[in-house]
Amino acid sequence: MGKIRVSIVGATGYSGKELIRILLKHPQIELMHLVSASYVGQNICEVYPEFTNQLDKELVALDREKIVQDSDIAFTALPHNVSLNIVPELLAAKSQLKVIDLSADFRLKDAQNYAKWYKKEHSEDSRALLKEAVYGLPELYKEDIKRAVLIANPGCYPTSAILGIAPLLAENLVETKNIIIDAKSGTSGAGRKLSLGLHFSECNESFKAYKTTMHNHIPEMEQELSLLYNSCQGNNGKNKNGKENKEIIISFTPHLLPLSRGILSTCYLNLIKDCDEQDIVALYEKFYHGAPFVRIFEPPNLPEVRFVQLTNYCDIGFALDRRMGIIKVISVIDNLTKGASGQAIQNMNIMFDLPEDMGLV
Amino acid sequence: MGKIRVSIVGATGYSGKELIRILLKHPQIELMHLVSASYVGQNICEVYPEFTNQLDKELVALDREKIVQDSDIAFTALPHNVSLNIVPELLAAKSQLKVIDLSADFRLKDAQNYAKWYKKEHSEDSRALLKEAVYGLPELYKEDIKRAVLIANPGCYPTSAILGIAPLLAENLVETKNIIIDAKSGTSGAGRKLSLGLHFSECNESFKAYKTTMHNHIPEMEQELSLLYNSCQGNNGKNKNGKENKEIIISFTPHLLPLSRGILSTCYLNLIKDCDEQDIVALYEKFYHGAPFVRIFEPPNLPEVRFVQLTNYCDIGFALDRRMGIIKVISVIDNLTKGASGQAIQNMNIMFDLPEDMGLV
Amino acid sequence: MGKIRVSIVGATGYSGKELIRILLKHPQIELMHLVSASYVGQNICEVYPEFTNQLDKELVALDREKIVQDSDIAFTALPHNVSLNIVPELLAAKSQLKVIDLSADFRLKDAQNYAKWYKKEHSEDSRALLKEAVYGLPELYKEDIKRAVLIANPGCYPTSAILGIAPLLAENLVETKNIIIDAKSGTSGAGRKLSLGLHFSECNESFKAYKTTMHNHIPEMEQELSLLYNSCQGNNGKNKNGKENKEIIISFTPHLLPLSRGILSTCYLNLIKDCDEQDIVALYEKFYHGAPFVRIFEPPNLPEVRFVQLTNYCDIGFALDRRMGIIKVISVIDNLTKGASGQAIQNMNIMFDLPEDMGLV
Amino acid sequence: MGKIRVSIVGATGYSGKELIRILLKHPQIELMHLVSASYVGQNICEVYPEFTNQLDKELVALDREKIVQDSDIAFTALPHNVSLNIVPELLAAKSQLKVIDLSADFRLKDAQNYAKWYKKEHSEDSRALLKEAVYGLPELYKEDIKRAVLIANPGCYPTSAILGIAPLLAENLVETKNIIIDAKSGTSGAGRKLSLGLHFSECNESFKAYKTTMHNHIPEMEQELSLLYNSCQGNNGKNKNGKENKEIIISFTPHLLPLSRGILSTCYLNLIKDCDEQDIVALYEKFYHGAPFVRIFEPPNLPEVRFVQLTNYCDIGFALDRRMGIIKVISVIDNLTKGASGQAIQNMNIMFDLPEDMGLV
Repeated sequence: MGKIRVSIVGATGYSGKELIRILLKHPQIELMHLVSASYVGQNICEVYPEFTNQLDKELVALDREKIVQDSDIAFTALPHNVSLNIVPELLAAKSQLKVIDLSADFRLKDAQNYAKWYKKEHSEDSRALLKEAVYGLPELYKEDIKRAVLIANPGCYPTSAILGIAPLLAENLVETKNIIIDAKSGTSGAGRKLSLGLHFSECNESFKAYKTTMHNHIPEMEQELSLLYNSCQGNNGKNKNGKENKEIIISFTPHLLPLSRGILSTCYLNLIKDCDEQDIVALYEKFYHGAPFVRIFEPPNLPEVRFVQLTNYCDIGFALDRRMGIIKVISVIDNLTKGASGQAIQNMNIMFDLPEDMGLV
Repeated sequence: MGKIRVSIVGATGYSGKELIRILLKHPQIELMHLVSASYVGQNICEVYPEFTNQLDKELVALDREKIVQDSDIAFTALPHNVSLNIVPELLAAKSQLKVIDLSADFRLKDAQNYAKWYKKEHSEDSRALLKEAVYGLPELYKEDIKRAVLIANPGCYPTSAILGIAPLLAENLVETKNIIIDAKSGTSGAGRKLSLGLHFSECNESFKAYKTTMHNHIPEMEQELSLLYNSCQGNNGKNKNGKENKEIIISFTPHLLPLSRGILSTCYLNLIKDCDEQDIVALYEKFYHGAPFVRIFEPPNLPEVRFVQLTNYCDIGFALDRRMGIIKVISVIDNLTKGASGQAIQNMNIMFDLPEDMGLV
Repeated sequence: MGKIRVSIVGATGYSGKELIRILLKHPQIELMHLVSASYVGQNICEVYPEFTNQLDKELVALDREKIVQDSDIAFTALPHNVSLNIVPELLAAKSQLKVIDLSADFRLKDAQNYAKWYKKEHSEDSRALLKEAVYGLPELYKEDIKRAVLIANPGCYPTSAILGIAPLLAENLVETKNIIIDAKSGTSGAGRKLSLGLHFSECNESFKAYKTTMHNHIPEMEQELSLLYNSCQGNNGKNKNGKENKEIIISFTPHLLPLSRGILSTCYLNLIKDCDEQDIVALYEKFYHGAPFVRIFEPPNLPEVRFVQLTNYCDIGFALDRRMGIIKVISVIDNLTKGASGQAIQNMNIMFDLPEDMGLV
Repeated sequence: MGKIRVSIVGATGYSGKELIRILLKHPQIELMHLVSASYVGQNICEVYPEFTNQLDKELVALDREKIVQDSDIAFTALPHNVSLNIVPELLAAKSQLKVIDLSADFRLKDAQNYAKWYKKEHSEDSRALLKEAVYGLPELYKEDIKRAVLIANPGCYPTSAILGIAPLLAENLVETKNIIIDAKSGTSGAGRKLSLGLHFSECNESFKAYKTTMHNHIPEMEQELSLLYNSCQGNNGKNKNGKENKEIIISFTPHLLPLSRGILSTCYLNLIKDCDEQDIVALYEKFYHGAPFVRIFEPPNLPEVRFVQLTNYCDIGFALDRRMGIIKVISVIDNLTKGASGQAIQNMNIMFDLPEDMGLV
């Protein structure tokens, strides 16, 4: 097979940079166009000198024709509210192009929900794509991803939280209410746009909670956890036979860590079945059987942020708080890799029938 | 009034150092003996060059007689399981000496509970002191502290968590079950003894949970929250009139932050009364009226670790998660100041009838 | 004596904030007006919540009249090229007002030199002030400072470097050429204006040199080192008796440290006299006799950045490299305290005949 | 060709871990024995959970026979003074085994010089190996490395400094005296043994110089710089024709950075020839022609530590200080990769006739 021709739209943000970092070691791709709004005409090595000797490519303005013509796949690593204008253009052409969108714009299946949380209405074109878009979490949707033309690549917090607690909900081991997710992320999650709050002098040696009730990753997590739960419990959304769909809601609190890369989510759920540590380890291992990037830690071992930095792993551990009837799940990822660009490339591998972990280990 | 003569037993650990740092600016004290097990004969400035020009004092071995004779108060900043041997000796003498113990050894009123969590039995002498020891959280026990001879200075995590949620329990605004405390601390909380896990290369750029079910600050928090709740609800521990005591239990998870000083506790409680942000701000301000070191943040403002570093403040903010019926309380302290040595000096000020904030602002 | 009435012009930059932090503990001052260009109408605690409970003051626009009328002294903590417009206005009035300017605008005695390095011409008014301005390094100019109306408060790098090597030049112990100063500063030295390079994700876990040949603190260091050297050697600037002035030039390289506060300068000088460690310690101690903020470290002890953080100390140590005939001087300060605001308050204390260290220890 | 069979003696120190990290991605090797003195019987993933799913291997005690029999090459990643006992044993056998020693024990060609700086005498066996050992800096000794049986892998500071200034000395562009190297290293350079000074609370938010006159990397740098200079100038060590060997000495000062990985060396040399930036860039590019891991930065661009982290690159930039006649060279590496294990694997590639950068980009 020839190499996969890859273009990146939004190549100079942190997700774009991380895509390049990984793709440089991927044996089956060819980097075609690197599109940047801010640095047109500059070489990528002027923006990121770390790529010197490894990549020699000029950043170009967006040219839909060229991308469609020269690429098998485009990664769109753009801010939310922007992707939804550009992706439909890329997919409009009669072409074989596939798109993996790293923004939030195609993750929510309900356009009104999107409008509510992201303060912008879908266009007709972008709305039309919602039903084609596949939520790109390979551990849950591998078969759909294989056939997808458009991937809505998951958010960083949702990747960490969903992978952390999916097995418990799938197996109906925990209450669907009172789910608390206390998440902590490094600073690169906030992107590269100028912000006083992200200055070294402002977040170094500090720690804070932010967006304590309305982070826009909430609807994404609730959508996916509800879908998973209802599907696994055989709920069909109809009102008969007592199998009505349950809508899972969560209490989500993100915090800002004084480190560059990494997310650790501490998830609290109320157990409704009696089980011991070994049962749960077995459950997780079964659920993630064949998933190359999920690693389960047996108690008392627990994952740490440093274990996953610059990798595509999601490391999951847990502790049973028997006095409270609570299970605490600790789920750790690198927000730029498994939480964004690594996962996007994992999706690409699946879409093009390559080994899922190619270029990623 | 003459100056208060102060000695420190355990002067070279981080709490001892922090005591010295603060006491150097305290206008009403005189530093007498600095006791160190590890550095006898050295000048304090050899161990901590930052004190050069400010303090010129030799570290000495423990000499009970001298301390009792030359001091009005002794701070014992020793590891747990050690204080309980030394404090009874200091207080045995017929003297006016008062002691503020920064270890955990006199915090738990039930000696069996201590033995269970701290893996060591009280001696007869130290057990006898348990009923005299006052839990040194001035915002709750100011009057008792005034009359105390022995202060059990609170732990860092408990200070942050108890101050954060005390008003809610006192006013019966929240369920007493399902209380979740997700706490994050800087590295100085672990003290100064050698440990690979505390090496810069091991915790820098990382983050982890630890002791996820059995941190020994748990019984201290549960004891104090239960006492407060039952006392405020008029429960009397008897079985009649339906006013039986409730034992509050919590789910506590500490995490290690890659920063030196500071604790942020995120506390999740289920609201049982309808209330809005203003009600809660008013409640907290009333509860902490006259408490110079508690600062309440009005939503959407939230405290951050950097706001309290090197201060004795406890900054408290909160958010209402109305979808879930949860209140999230964020409580922030410097673990070495309000979480240890600053609070100890606040206690000293109260015991000696000085302004509560002397030397601390 | 009544309290000194103090106003700050530029109260919300890092130097302004540091002035406030220190002045809050100063027993002989009263804070009058806090001027801010960016936050007029907000309370200082909205910008810096850490001042809550300690200071309740609205930020105001610059009103020359009011400042002159209500203040004994004004600190101008403004960017260079801005102070030179504002200071003449403040001093124009027939008033008793004194000004301590924390910018570079009045440090260089030669207006052309200023124009060359700072890319802006002095106005007639500001140029007229150059001969009145006293370079506010108390360890060198205490007597002049006592009588000054306008203080040009030294730069952070120059404070560290000049104090580090002044005694060697004064005593003619080293060559005046080949002086190399390799300096490393924390991020707060760059101020608070938005800059991608100062984002946490960009400077965390990194280190770099910058402005390797043309940092604008160079002329300030060369002016002061030359003045000191020539004065101490009895050079009079005339061409007779072989006592011509020597112009000292230095090679200065600043680097950016991944920490918030602190400068460490490593200075390399060629020894021209034979001397041992004890001679040099004695020389430094004599030179800085009576200077409360200089601490000399005897070899092999060396100062570290953490020893001086949040203090007004300049810690100086050195090592003799006998194989090379080089003395390496290590000089450490907190760039915001001794390198800016602490030194400014030290100057204020001297100008108002207060103990030099009032409010600073 | 079959895969190269690789064993590591000292697999659990930071260099050993870094060897494993890189070798896991190397397509032409097979990991045989991982020897550890401290963790015998444990799986490598118990010591380093980050290797979970990637490597499943038990740590074993040193068994010379097995290593010799099962390996084509052994990396010895041991403390200095230890390697010199073990390497001779490994090479004693009649075998094809090659050894790359990451300690300092075989770097100094003069056994007396070793004894002086490393406080230990060579044994007869280890001394005998000195003349066979090749200093493993591929940019200088590639041909010798191809034929070597024993590689003395360079130190981290020397790698950075020698690569930084070698072209200037080779071309006789600078004075051989007054060479000043001001180097800054992250904490991982100090290894993994317990040390209070390496605790997070002790070096976070700080910076210091250490071993200011006697770091034991000095003789290594001087040996190699002298060899290079004399060889390039045609000096033959004899006293005739004015071509006597010159011994280059340097003034070296290491500092400890609050970051995990990376070294930046700022080197100051006096220019003796007139040249401009372009000349020097050309000189460096010629000198390093064909060296895949040296990247030259053209002024005013300069390398930063983050550009090389987790890579085998040595990034070199410079600035001309024309006022002083000084060239400042900035040379940056990752101390664990190009400064240790990456370079070791680069050497292995050369020894086994593989592409020099295999597994390293």
